Amino acid sequence: MIRPGCTLGILGGGQLGRMIAMAAAQLGLRTHIYAPDENSPAFEVATEFTIAAYEDEANLVRFAKAVDVVTYEFENVPSETAATLSAHALLAPNAQALAVSQDRFLEKSFIAGLGIAVAPFAPVSTEAELAEALERIGRPAVLKTRRFGYDGKGQVKITPETDPAAAWEEIGRAASILEGFVPFEREVSVVAARTAAGAFAAFDLCANEHRYHILDTTRVPAGVSPETEEQAFRIARSIAEALDYVGVIAVELFLVTEDGTERLVVNEIAPRVHNSGHWTLGGATTSQFEQHVRAVCGWPLGDTARLGRVEMKNLIGHDADAWEEILAEPGAHLHLYGKTEARAGRKMGHVTRVFPEAS
Amino acid sequence: MIRPGCTLGILGGGQLGRMIAMAAAQLGLRTHIYAPDENSPAFEVATEFTIAAYEDEANLVRFAKAVDVVTYEFENVPSETAATLSAHALLAPNAQALAVSQDRFLEKSFIAGLGIAVAPFAPVSTEAELAEALERIGRPAVLKTRRFGYDGKGQVKITPETDPAAAWEEIGRAASILEGFVPFEREVSVVAARTAAGAFAAFDLCANEHRYHILDTTRVPAGVSPETEEQAFRIARSIAEALDYVGVIAVELFLVTEDGTERLVVNEIAPRVHNSGHWTLGGATTSQFEQHVRAVCGWPLGDTARLGRVEMKNLIGHDADAWEEILAEPGAHLHLYGKTEARAGRKMGHVTRVFPEAS
Repeated sequence: MIRPGCTLGILGGGQLGRMIAMAAAQLGLRTHIYAPDENSPAFEVATEFTIAAYEDEANLVRFAKAVDVVTYEFENVPSETAATLSAHALLAPNAQALAVSQDRFLEKSFIAGLGIAVAPFAPVSTEAELAEALERIGRPAVLKTRRFGYDGKGQVKITPETDPAAAWEEIGRAASILEGFVPFEREVSVVAARTAAGAFAAFDLCANEHRYHILDTTRVPAGVSPETEEQAFRIARSIAEALDYVGVIAVELFLVTEDGTERLVVNEIAPRVHNSGHWTLGGATTSQFEQHVRAVCGWPLGDTARLGRVEMKNLIGHDADAWEEILAEPGAHLHLYGKTEARAGRKMGHVTRVFPEAS
Repeated sequence: MIRPGCTLGILGGGQLGRMIAMAAAQLGLRTHIYAPDENSPAFEVATEFTIAAYEDEANLVRFAKAVDVVTYEFENVPSETAATLSAHALLAPNAQALAVSQDRFLEKSFIAGLGIAVAPFAPVSTEAELAEALERIGRPAVLKTRRFGYDGKGQVKITPETDPAAAWEEIGRAASILEGFVPFEREVSVVAARTAAGAFAAFDLCANEHRYHILDTTRVPAGVSPETEEQAFRIARSIAEALDYVGVIAVELFLVTEDGTERLVVNEIAPRVHNSGHWTLGGATTSQFEQHVRAVCGWPLGDTARLGRVEMKNLIGHDADAWEEILAEPGAHLHLYGKTEARAGRKMGHVTRVFPEAS
């Protein structure tokens, strides 16, 4: 049994690992971050850290033996890394969750297999398969690499004017998936947690706005009907149960409104704490980071009650230069990630604003 | 100017330093803890730490030069230590605040000099002076060492039955102060912050209950009249201004009710974040720890709005064994300090409960 005083191992040293580590410390846990970059922001708040490659088996084994449970902040943990860690420590979420979320084709197939709506999709591994897939799915569509895509990277939009051969070159002839375009009105997401014992708790559905393919703003409530929100929770729960999932999971969905009727289409899942859940830090009784720690430790899940109408804004690149104005704003919660260089597109921090609930 | 990315130095490695360090990290600061004990809980969340004695001048100078501003978590910082640090770094709160709060006689004289009510008091450095003081102040009274008293240590109560000679022996013939007994109804405290530019913000007045001379429970609101609360804020502000104070300050007061009229008598001040301000972490928009960081960095003070009716309970010794039940309680915020050994009387953590405001 994991108790306060035990050590939580975290793979990955970015802002997500940093915020998980701070939540763990609040609950009396020690933390150990494993990341290859010596300038990892999470190291600054961790009890211990290891600077080593994710493929460094000897260091992985040493790390796994030094901690009581291992979690991670990113879904692209190599499967060999997950296997090595699992052999010597409890890994949560499990390797299956990683495998499914790392491959867009596996992911879509798995979700569709649960009877949950996804965009029309087809695997593409040759130019001929792309032509066939376009025939079946139609245009507009998006060609996406099966692996390692994030924040809009590894994607090519295919309009009626696009030359399929050019798109195939642009995607680097990589194993891909063609996805039909979903005419969505809004992007929403569920951030939820499940424990090994099967306890499940979801935070309120949130609506997400992206800029340049990077999350810009999250708003809660999401402005959908109670039935739609319930359906989103059922979707998240059924995915988590099918994966025997332990920890916080994020499910990104498209909200499609036709003739006044709302329906949901799953876009993708993330087996980790998620940027669209940052609003919970200051905006809900329990933050997603604390909830993740509770879940991976096998502890009771926390209260997901929302504290008001909440808006979370990412501070990208030089947005964070406005830190002093944000500090002067009543009710704004500023979070900076300790990154030294404000590169374009880099997530430097976020600000959460909590307003009285509209009556 | 101190900016995110700069380093906050903290003298002292206990739970207060730990919670200050976490608040600093949230705002993108690096932290460096200086403490003599290698098992200091604050080390676990700090960017850097130095294990050295508070009298170790070479290490103090190295520490001061490595950080951008120095603060502390305890008032018994030796004056030589404060002088050494001040020579090489910005020290906040300043050395004067330390000097005044370290000596009960100086402290009482200083406060009384501002025209603020304190208990009747007299300095005692011989048995004869004790007899004279008792003659003037009467019984019951409390004989307290001028320096190094906390949580009821260094105090002897003098009732009509007490032999003054025995009391004088019990206090170890140490330089002391005799204080008249204040027939208080309740103990309350103000936790407030002041910046170098003179900005001032107080959290709501809280009521404190002690057990065995250790804080047990803090409740907010304190249940006093708005006039009394305003008076408490004015007292705190005038003390902070007179000290040219920078950072969070706590002022402990006795509430005396006579014929339905409330009046306040200052008990003591603490030049630091304070146990009676722990309720702000989860119970107010800004925590006292974040507020302290903002103040010592010269940043805008945060919003002190309270999020509901709040109750903070210390987890002393084996109280913390109930961590799992507390985690299962909706709305309870658990904070554990990472201390390994649950000795009797040791503060292991605290739990904050936020309830809807009584209407």
